[in-house]
Amino acid sequence: MFAEADLSCDAFLGGRLRIWQPKQGYRAAMDPVLLAAACPARQGQTVLELGCGAGVAALCLAVRVPGVSVAGVEIQPDYGELARRNAAGNGVALEVAEGDIAHLPPGLRTRSFDHVIANPPYYPAHAGTAARDAGRERALREETPLSLWFEVALRRLKPGGWLTVIQSADRLADMLDLKGAGSITILPVAPRTGRDATRVILRARKGGRAPLRLLAPFILHTGDRHERDGESFTPAAQAVLRSGLGIPV
Amino acid sequence: MFAEADLSCDAFLGGRLRIWQPKQGYRAAMDPVLLAAACPARQGQTVLELGCGAGVAALCLAVRVPGVSVAGVEIQPDYGELARRNAAGNGVALEVAEGDIAHLPPGLRTRSFDHVIANPPYYPAHAGTAARDAGRERALREETPLSLWFEVALRRLKPGGWLTVIQSADRLADMLDLKGAGSITILPVAPRTGRDATRVILRARKGGRAPLRLLAPFILHTGDRHERDGESFTPAAQAVLRSGLGIPV
Repeated sequence: MFAEADLSCDAFLGGRLRIWQPKQGYRAAMDPVLLAAACPARQGQTVLELGCGAGVAALCLAVRVPGVSVAGVEIQPDYGELARRNAAGNGVALEVAEGDIAHLPPGLRTRSFDHVIANPPYYPAHAGTAARDAGRERALREETPLSLWFEVALRRLKPGGWLTVIQSADRLADMLDLKGAGSITILPVAPRTGRDATRVILRARKGGRAPLRLLAPFILHTGDRHERDGESFTPAAQAVLRSGLGIPV
Repeated sequence: MFAEADLSCDAFLGGRLRIWQPKQGYRAAMDPVLLAAACPARQGQTVLELGCGAGVAALCLAVRVPGVSVAGVEIQPDYGELARRNAAGNGVALEVAEGDIAHLPPGLRTRSFDHVIANPPYYPAHAGTAARDAGRERALREETPLSLWFEVALRRLKPGGWLTVIQSADRLADMLDLKGAGSITILPVAPRTGRDATRVILRARKGGRAPLRLLAPFILHTGDRHERDGESFTPAAQAVLRSGLGIPV
């Protein structure tokens, strides 16, 4: 468990969510918020988050879509515990299971969902430098291959259900190596107009057959470069990050 | 052979190139011009175009990069003949071989190139409605799988050489299923800001190991929608299509 002194309480969605997370470990920033905004869940549907960490994506989704039923699985018990605490603190009935996505707990393994969302680790195993913090390292380093995340997600989806995943843009080829899903849309996320995408958000439908769509990029910041600290979000980014709206497609 | 009456002579690159092509068959528009603009060939280098049609991409490249040595292979003899005629008419020493890319003529099979470029057919075999014109159908319909185009291209590249390919954006997943190449960049091409990409231009390096880059889209037209006939190209598109400049990356 984290000691209280090692936690900070941070505001998301313009203060509609308050999230406890470790000061030093894996800290949620924009990615889980964008992930939640891109998931096309509707009232009454069920959502499973693979690797929910402290619960930011699942909670953002629950706040945006009233009446959605959200479950998460997290391999690191201390993060799972934070997710439970964050759910309670924000009045959301988030069900959090502890476990490895490669061996889902029986309570999840036997169910199917309308949506699966995931923000899998960005860095391939054995590449680059390890993060100093073990929890952060585990959240960022791929121990389970991306293909297995997709396989598990697709197995848990109902026919016609949607998978929504955010990843580092340089993993695009791995993202598109998807068996059993189609109707793929790729939303590039770029820091500014004219810049390379840093993230991609994939949506794919189990059994979908519509052609792949490569969408216009979602631009986070105004201006050509970082000019000063503080806010410089585009209206589209503000709508998602501050007002908690979905990303229309 | 095409009858003279069935041909039109069209201007490309602001009139720097004059291209004879069939009025009814496969007619080059922007795609081969964009393909040529995206190829990073430099003076003194060698380029092979797979499926060169009437030669537009190869000739655009030769006009933009003086001292580049360009060869093309085309399966349809009447289009290959047009490519020779277009080369002569524009004073370019384009070498055109006739043949199937799956069985390259010996004169090409034994050579390697600094660059390979291709604008392969966009429509998978047995999908959709056939074009009325047989030549157009053959230029657009995939008889040779995209994976084989890539395989042949990579075999003909020198180590460290670059492959540049333009394709329909909905084939992105097939485009990224590339063995033996890396340092991939994907340039989405979109008709207008905020619209889905209609084309993607892939660049990949034989033996390359740099991370994949998903670039900001190349936007063709100004404005939110088609407002009138005639010119509404963005400055970036004009630079490529009218002034014959390369696409900077």
